[in-house]
Amino acid sequence: MAKGEQKETLDAITPMDVDFAKWYTDICKKAELIEYTSVKGCMVIRPYGYAIWENIQKNLDARFKETGHENVCMPMFIPESLLQKEKDHVAGFAPEVAWVTHGGSEKLEDRLCVRPTSETLFCEHYANIIHSYRDLPKLYNQWVSVVRWEKTTRPFLRSREFLWQEGHTIHATAEEAIEETERMLNVYADFCEKDLAIPVVKGRKTESDKFAGAEATYAIEALMHDGKALQAGTSHYFGDGFAKAFDIQYTTKENQKTYPFQTSWGVTTRLIGAIIMTHGDNKGLVLPPHIAPVQAMIVPVAQHKPGVLEKVAEIEERLKKSFRVKSDVSDNSPGWKFAEYEMKGVPARIEIGPRDIEKGECVVVTRHDGVKHSVSLDSIETSLAELLEEVQTGLYEKALANREKKTYRCQSIEEIRQALADNGPGFVLAPWCGEEECEKKVKEETGAGSRCIPFGEEVHDEKCCCCGKKAKHNVLWGIAY
Amino acid sequence: MAKGEQKETLDAITPMDVDFAKWYTDICKKAELIEYTSVKGCMVIRPYGYAIWENIQKNLDARFKETGHENVCMPMFIPESLLQKEKDHVAGFAPEVAWVTHGGSEKLEDRLCVRPTSETLFCEHYANIIHSYRDLPKLYNQWVSVVRWEKTTRPFLRSREFLWQEGHTIHATAEEAIEETERMLNVYADFCEKDLAIPVVKGRKTESDKFAGAEATYAIEALMHDGKALQAGTSHYFGDGFAKAFDIQYTTKENQKTYPFQTSWGVTTRLIGAIIMTHGDNKGLVLPPHIAPVQAMIVPVAQHKPGVLEKVAEIEERLKKSFRVKSDVSDNSPGWKFAEYEMKGVPARIEIGPRDIEKGECVVVTRHDGVKHSVSLDSIETSLAELLEEVQTGLYEKALANREKKTYRCQSIEEIRQALADNGPGFVLAPWCGEEECEKKVKEETGAGSRCIPFGEEVHDEKCCCCGKKAKHNVLWGIAY
Repeated sequence: MAKGEQKETLDAITPMDVDFAKWYTDICKKAELIEYTSVKGCMVIRPYGYAIWENIQKNLDARFKETGHENVCMPMFIPESLLQKEKDHVAGFAPEVAWVTHGGSEKLEDRLCVRPTSETLFCEHYANIIHSYRDLPKLYNQWVSVVRWEKTTRPFLRSREFLWQEGHTIHATAEEAIEETERMLNVYADFCEKDLAIPVVKGRKTESDKFAGAEATYAIEALMHDGKALQAGTSHYFGDGFAKAFDIQYTTKENQKTYPFQTSWGVTTRLIGAIIMTHGDNKGLVLPPHIAPVQAMIVPVAQHKPGVLEKVAEIEERLKKSFRVKSDVSDNSPGWKFAEYEMKGVPARIEIGPRDIEKGECVVVTRHDGVKHSVSLDSIETSLAELLEEVQTGLYEKALANREKKTYRCQSIEEIRQALADNGPGFVLAPWCGEEECEKKVKEETGAGSRCIPFGEEVHDEKCCCCGKKAKHNVLWGIAY
Repeated sequence: MAKGEQKETLDAITPMDVDFAKWYTDICKKAELIEYTSVKGCMVIRPYGYAIWENIQKNLDARFKETGHENVCMPMFIPESLLQKEKDHVAGFAPEVAWVTHGGSEKLEDRLCVRPTSETLFCEHYANIIHSYRDLPKLYNQWVSVVRWEKTTRPFLRSREFLWQEGHTIHATAEEAIEETERMLNVYADFCEKDLAIPVVKGRKTESDKFAGAEATYAIEALMHDGKALQAGTSHYFGDGFAKAFDIQYTTKENQKTYPFQTSWGVTTRLIGAIIMTHGDNKGLVLPPHIAPVQAMIVPVAQHKPGVLEKVAEIEERLKKSFRVKSDVSDNSPGWKFAEYEMKGVPARIEIGPRDIEKGECVVVTRHDGVKHSVSLDSIETSLAELLEEVQTGLYEKALANREKKTYRCQSIEEIRQALADNGPGFVLAPWCGEEECEKKVKEETGAGSRCIPFGEEVHDEKCCCCGKKAKHNVLWGIAY
């Protein structure tokens, strides 16, 4: 079937209330974010999807550089012998790596895994380049793809290969390293809230949920439209465990040999999944203006009438100076174009027709609420800037309201079960004694696992929601993606 | 040995005339561009090396987008069955790919190769998304790393994993595709000459030297300081061969099914090798200002004297608005700093001391010629901009003069041998009949292989330098990296 012939009959997507999972993959495909391939669990990220990732990259990369980080590039392969140096780490990752066993026709002596994460490579490098306190800290990051041999896969959320950034830093003291771990968690949280318009909960993972080899793992957790939880970014503090395993030592000012302290932190293309499931609706994708590849799409109305296309070109030229703007002057109907750019989540649509031109006006329709705004063409730059900021804020507030509506404070397993039954999936805040057994039981009996121990939610006299003993922490529980 | 203690005794590098290969790897290591790893043939690209690549990327990416291209991201794996679909292509690449045979503990039914290049993946994708003439052209590019299992490796020049961009486009007509192939070759040539200050020869590869699966391969060839030739970028025209192998068809306006035409084109981190070997000298790296991570380094003189550090900070702040500039106010000696930033190829060094400040001046030393320029602090922005442009032009002219000096026009194998013996390695321009046998013989007898059939060097009545029959082409011959 030719695309040309399809154009007047843009298929609707599955409504989110009917089948949220189907709605999600419909958007991934119909908004042209991805396409499947014959490599199971791997996808093509199409231009529109990749442009979102490029905007995420550009924004985060600037934030990393402002906080003193430098980009590097490590090999994609890790020799099996190197992967095995840190015991918890290899135990966590070995079951899910892809193994290269042959180079050309030659069988390799030491198999190579395709990096699932690069701590071991960074450690080997640190051991080569770090000798003195003068060589510390090193604040590194890389933008690469990694491979984890997942059994079940979904576009952006869980794929065998995914794009990410992995920050890796090494410091003279534990304090500095812990500070870095927290700093980067805050960078992620600020980025999610300000630029992706996704409210997040910051917290520490429980022991059972830590990164393989970490002393502490911090995470930001977001609540999706369907009430399920999505881990949106993690930041790990390693202590000096990796340094000891890889024999990274430095000489202090006092001429003592000692081990440095490390961190790593990462976010992935999963953030695109988070955007879809936080802001999307039954018309398709809804993109926050800060990272939308096209912030405003100009659609001419009655474009055959004299002067319309000229005015569209003139307005596009003006707006291009300050916005990511495009116009669609193809011979598809305005109705088709409206539906197409709604599907693609373009934050604002600018309609310009003969009557608008006569009045020196145009209509700006904001995607997230469908509201039509009459705007004077003379001051369209100012109006569009204001409207886009309103959209950005509006999206955040809507998502925050959804999260608040779906966050339940409970004191017992029974209350958790009831809250989830009455209101559907959501975040649960409930106290916990700190025992792994109770953590497991809550998940088994309610379906909600521990997401993190959120900051700023200290317990006072609460009892564990499971065993009734004195609680150590309030825990954020949820049904995870 | 602690870095701190090394600082006063920066080791010299091997002079280029003593051992060019050693000089090259010395620069790679001592300018902190790369570090070796335990993965043979793979390297760490360190922050300073990666920053050069980021500047190359940023510049080229803007050029690609200006010419209508969009970035995408394909999987890094290619199933063996998919790789085998185009016969010439698989024959060219299969012997040098890395094979993934296991995912976790599970043996894969269809082995996956780590992409050595992605034509097959793009073709599979095109077959999914191209149906009508309305879907054409697609102008795609991706920035990724690829793997080729090379036997002998050298940093940047030939490594088992390297970073590159690969453009892949598909068009309705052969003419459009050929035009694209030429357009991108010109983009590469313009970038090399204007931004890397590397003069290049544009031309077409001979039949024996084409890309596996291509109808025609175009290349830009550069001459390194030692007189050897480096292929700096290639652009391939595929005709409809891949389309037929992958059954990519589209419906024309006249409602006929037909095959589209394809291209691909790429440059790699090899360009960093080209920069080193074109501009470097016995003091180290020399970077063209357009892509230098640091365009000017401010070094205080007598920094303990009152007012010096303040003035350095003030000038840095001013210059940061228009330049990539840093200052080094560490306690290393000015002499150490001079040597360090000469090693790193920083285009301009700005020296500011008490006497300069008194006179309202500073000294700007340009890296490529060592010339000291007295510059008024009042107008340092203008002076630095002018000086950096002079450096950029100066580097190009110096490289061009070197290439012209080392380009020999010859009519026979004997003349070629003589020219290379008298003057050392260089480019040879000599006529050729078009027979592969003669092409081989020239290489066997002179060491110089065909690099390309250069544009604008048509033959008239010349005879083949090997067999003496009527020549079809002038060929650029050289000893290749």
